[in-house]
Amino acid sequence: MKAIEKYNFPVSEIRRFLEPGPVVLVSSAWKGETDIMTMGWHMVMEFSPSLVGCLISSGNHSYELIRRSKECVINVPTVALAKTVAGIGNCSGAEVDKFKQFKLTAQEADKVKAPLIAQCYANLECRLADGGLAGKYNLFIFEVVRAHAPKRPKYPKTIHYRGEGMFMVSGRSLNLKRLFRPGML
Amino acid sequence: MKAIEKYNFPVSEIRRFLEPGPVVLVSSAWKGETDIMTMGWHMVMEFSPSLVGCLISSGNHSYELIRRSKECVINVPTVALAKTVAGIGNCSGAEVDKFKQFKLTAQEADKVKAPLIAQCYANLECRLADGGLAGKYNLFIFEVVRAHAPKRPKYPKTIHYRGEGMFMVSGRSLNLKRLFRPGML
Repeated sequence: MKAIEKYNFPVSEIRRFLEPGPVVLVSSAWKGETDIMTMGWHMVMEFSPSLVGCLISSGNHSYELIRRSKECVINVPTVALAKTVAGIGNCSGAEVDKFKQFKLTAQEADKVKAPLIAQCYANLECRLADGGLAGKYNLFIFEVVRAHAPKRPKYPKTIHYRGEGMFMVSGRSLNLKRLFRPGML
Repeated sequence: MKAIEKYNFPVSEIRRFLEPGPVVLVSSAWKGETDIMTMGWHMVMEFSPSLVGCLISSGNHSYELIRRSKECVINVPTVALAKTVAGIGNCSGAEVDKFKQFKLTAQEADKVKAPLIAQCYANLECRLADGGLAGKYNLFIFEVVRAHAPKRPKYPKTIHYRGEGMFMVSGRSLNLKRLFRPGML
């Protein structure tokens, strides 16, 4: 699959991609090693600074890379990468080089050492903002410090995990702007 | 709209409804007052105990009801309630009785005092498990102590918020079970 051409995207607006709840790919790097993990448990926590809460279980090979480097990239894949997403979630970085195994292109990020995944729709460069809950809940609070997204489509066709190997593909748009007060948009 | 007939649903399996990332309605009660708020920022945090992280801004009228009662119900609406969801998010419980205003039926819960919204697809009764981050991040970690869902459809047609008054309606299912290792399902 080809790399997607992207532009600088305002970090305070990344809710557009994360709030609908897609499965994402988290890439990380530490001392020359890289890894990718799938992540379904995440939430937007603040617009500015742009905070995202992520559940990263210590059972993941990526856990130590992220904990030590205090960085990661949250990559938003589209349905075109669905099989790759499932494949990445079902093997371990302890055994395979996931970039090589899944023919993904690691691109250099602007502000972190973790690589961007070129084939994903959007890439969110993250620095650990608060690791205080990593021990108790495996909860990492990241700040998105740089975001990359293509100009179009405005809304990617994402995949959303339901458990049991079942995904939901994002469907039609529903514009309810007329029901919003100006300050709530 | 009619109430939906529901059955006891295993609390450890509520990821099916929340992990895809729908907008939900949070109902609460305190000293005879009830309220409903829309919530887009939430994440599953654990299967058992069944933990859900929720961002509830102190600007919401529901904030004090939830903080004081240490309880709420997370209600999962379908697209049939989309306008109601937008409407609820664009007025304040300080000014209107949302159950009355939006013609929603408050049903008695089993384990909490907050009411279930009968017209929603699923209702998750929650008790505050950890309020330690409510001050710093408006983050409430709830334990789902009882769940109610209909027998079918297995997957509700949910709505997912993208900001700017735009929603995404959940689309087709994609079964990738064959790519999962047995322990990963």
